[in-house]
Amino acid sequence: VGSVVVDMSMSLDGFVARLNDDVEQLHDWMFTGDTQMGARSASVLPGRESFKLSGTNAEVLDDYFGTTGAFVMGRRWFDIGERPWGDNPPFHVPVFVVTHRARARLTKGETTFTFVTDGIESALRQAKSAAAHKNVLVGGANVAQQLIKAGLLDEVQIHLVPILFGGGRRLFEDLGVQIDLQTVRVIEAPGVTHLRFRVARRGS
Amino acid sequence: VGSVVVDMSMSLDGFVARLNDDVEQLHDWMFTGDTQMGARSASVLPGRESFKLSGTNAEVLDDYFGTTGAFVMGRRWFDIGERPWGDNPPFHVPVFVVTHRARARLTKGETTFTFVTDGIESALRQAKSAAAHKNVLVGGANVAQQLIKAGLLDEVQIHLVPILFGGGRRLFEDLGVQIDLQTVRVIEAPGVTHLRFRVARRGS
Repeated sequence: VGSVVVDMSMSLDGFVARLNDDVEQLHDWMFTGDTQMGARSASVLPGRESFKLSGTNAEVLDDYFGTTGAFVMGRRWFDIGERPWGDNPPFHVPVFVVTHRARARLTKGETTFTFVTDGIESALRQAKSAAAHKNVLVGGANVAQQLIKAGLLDEVQIHLVPILFGGGRRLFEDLGVQIDLQTVRVIEAPGVTHLRFRVARRGS
Repeated sequence: VGSVVVDMSMSLDGFVARLNDDVEQLHDWMFTGDTQMGARSASVLPGRESFKLSGTNAEVLDDYFGTTGAFVMGRRWFDIGERPWGDNPPFHVPVFVVTHRARARLTKGETTFTFVTDGIESALRQAKSAAAHKNVLVGGANVAQQLIKAGLLDEVQIHLVPILFGGGRRLFEDLGVQIDLQTVRVIEAPGVTHLRFRVARRGS
């Protein structure tokens, strides 16, 4: 069975967006290749599918999408992304959006967005079912924090961007609980360090 | 000439100590070797000099002490460390403690602690003079934030520990200013990822 993985790009000072939801510079790594003429390319990139990326970041993105069977995201994340993702969002698997506002299922290209109003655990259950043996990826600080506190998280993948935002929305607000992690892998790449951790156990 | 380097062990959620100044687990990497019987060993380790460490973390520590000509630290950091460092603290170079309380110069083993009461910039000036061509290392969240905001910082070295503290003292509180960084190096080691960044330029 797959894992539940929080996956976010984060500034060194812990922010996943500025206060006005601006995420400029935080996702530049997705469009940054090792070389101009590298041999590898990513097949999918959020909002810029015609762009072919080369190198390490491309491999990370290929792995990211290749091992993911469903996404869970907060409504804020969906709202930020809806326009830039365009008519064929890069997910190509079911996406479950946790929201308080009911909305009919939305299909764009190969991606279906289901709006879940009865809570994060319901969204996660539906995503796990849809993902079958693949991973469920979680995006958005709010839903990530809820899953961490509920002990429902298996892994944390951070794309650490070398910038200090100086303010904004933190991925890890004061959680109020200690969580021990194990480093699974560290990948240095142009403009970003990809860090992956497994949740070891819950502390006191 | 040397660089001014903030150097701190930090939890993945951004804390350098718990609220009660407890730093348990955060510096365990200093005592974690690659193997039990590795070939390399560190010559100095804070408070446990008789302990011989092997492997990557030892190399990082050797490099850390070998390239450092003086330290600047906050009083809180000094207060936390004074007892565990013992009679022969591991610094072996001049240490300048930024404090509001005047205190006579203190010599322990090969380390001299000078208590600077006229501000961080004075402490940094004295440390730079003492360090000559070597680096000045800065420890403590408070002094680090002051130096970052004042634009007096050249590099940031983070020993990123795979743990979520859930609360405590943040290295990077909301700085209120954006700082662009460049990744200098990433070293994966047992129980820690050593990240080093150069301050690129100050944003708006």
